[in-house]
Amino acid sequence: MFERALAQTAKQVDAALLHLLEPLGNQPVIEAMRYGVDGGKRLRAFLVMEGARLHGVPEGQAILAAAAVEAMHAYSLIHDDLPCMDDDDLRRGQPTVHVKWDEATAVLAGDALQALAFELLTRPECSPNPDVRLALIGTMARAAGAQGMVLGQALDIAAETAPIPLTLDEITELQAGKTGALIRWSAEAGAVLAQAEPAPLRAYATALGLAFQISDDILDVEGDARKAGKRLGKDAAAGKATFVSLLGLDGAKSRARSLVTEAEAALASYGPRAENLRQAARFVIARDM
Amino acid sequence: MFERALAQTAKQVDAALLHLLEPLGNQPVIEAMRYGVDGGKRLRAFLVMEGARLHGVPEGQAILAAAAVEAMHAYSLIHDDLPCMDDDDLRRGQPTVHVKWDEATAVLAGDALQALAFELLTRPECSPNPDVRLALIGTMARAAGAQGMVLGQALDIAAETAPIPLTLDEITELQAGKTGALIRWSAEAGAVLAQAEPAPLRAYATALGLAFQISDDILDVEGDARKAGKRLGKDAAAGKATFVSLLGLDGAKSRARSLVTEAEAALASYGPRAENLRQAARFVIARDM
Repeated sequence: MFERALAQTAKQVDAALLHLLEPLGNQPVIEAMRYGVDGGKRLRAFLVMEGARLHGVPEGQAILAAAAVEAMHAYSLIHDDLPCMDDDDLRRGQPTVHVKWDEATAVLAGDALQALAFELLTRPECSPNPDVRLALIGTMARAAGAQGMVLGQALDIAAETAPIPLTLDEITELQAGKTGALIRWSAEAGAVLAQAEPAPLRAYATALGLAFQISDDILDVEGDARKAGKRLGKDAAAGKATFVSLLGLDGAKSRARSLVTEAEAALASYGPRAENLRQAARFVIARDM
Repeated sequence: MFERALAQTAKQVDAALLHLLEPLGNQPVIEAMRYGVDGGKRLRAFLVMEGARLHGVPEGQAILAAAAVEAMHAYSLIHDDLPCMDDDDLRRGQPTVHVKWDEATAVLAGDALQALAFELLTRPECSPNPDVRLALIGTMARAAGAQGMVLGQALDIAAETAPIPLTLDEITELQAGKTGALIRWSAEAGAVLAQAEPAPLRAYATALGLAFQISDDILDVEGDARKAGKRLGKDAAAGKATFVSLLGLDGAKSRARSLVTEAEAALASYGPRAENLRQAARFVIARDM
């Protein structure tokens, strides 16, 4: 059920992104944008679509928010992969944008995807209520910016050359920005679109986001690089503190499991209709890709 | 009169940006954002403030749009200066962000400034009318994105390695994206804020933007690097086509002058109240900095 829903959302959002990028033409930087948004599990889009469904928001509206968050996520991956950042040459099993084109194109394609994400949220198809669109734009800007994703990535880069490894609190703060903020935005978007109380989805997403990052650290140690489509073992090689180095492998797994329980519990008020989101939380720590 | 107004706007927008960046804290990436938005002539902010004044929009509203466009402009300069792009080590007489910090911090500070620009435009202080804020965000996203500033910069980078120098039409298209789109947004913002017809300001800004770029090419040949605060003569050294290489020095100056006449004429309906904007157009081709 969950896996079918995830695959279905991925298909929908892939088609929407292709359609939305179509009018932009065929300059290399546009082709790099298309390449950068292609593929991935579309977990963020799935959270948007499921949150919207729970609140009776039409799919035709939610798909704009789902496409916007995937454009924003894709920009962050393109920039994170740059040689001056994480220096990754492989992403989703394919050469990264700066390898396939060049660094300048990768910087610019990322820049344009960020602008596109905000532009999509201004469209009336996203919500007939202008205040709702503004709320989505404002919260996304904060999630993406200097107190969200950018700050998390900056802390992550700084950690690589820090004389002392980060503490558990510091890593938790780093994660809350780097991946947590956009995951939270995604899960809350459905409630924002419906002008409903977002607190239960926020609590769900906060636990889910942390479980997601812990499970990423576990995968980095015991995952299969071929299935993951990216290089693994980089953090250990770099001597970076991770949830695994701080909690041990068993401790990290146990913490991830209790966060999933927490995430599931946050959805109590939605009853059985939130089963897909509960399964998504379990999926996040069970995935081997 | 014009120069006093320009200096006054610069003071206002400098203070506004400092105030708006203050709550973000003191992480290195935030300090790099502050450094990146510091200084400059603030021509774009000036266009916003003058356009707003012409339409009776309160300064307290227009200053948000002015700060937003300067944040967006600052992000584009930080990214354009990167080694993989124009590779400039000097900007406004100071080391560029990637020289003072590092490339990763420069990429991230630019990314966060773009997000901040959009976030500022969502605030009710910008306009009590949500549709007006959405119009400003949507047009700015288009001006900044894959069919505006990013496309212009991508064409500019591509021109450096192109086997044949660009034609006049191609350089004009490149400029319309690289610097023209954001200048147009700035000049129109006052009319958008007042929900008035933006056509006269758009015509003014289109001519002004092109005159600005031609005068930049002239400065690159005969300017004073110390006053300009950046390295000059780079285009000629790189064998790039410019308005000067295509029109000759006299031809370029004559074209810039006729564009200024065109820009002034577009403001006819505003009468003498638009004198500051007319002087701004003359300033753009007379500046030696």
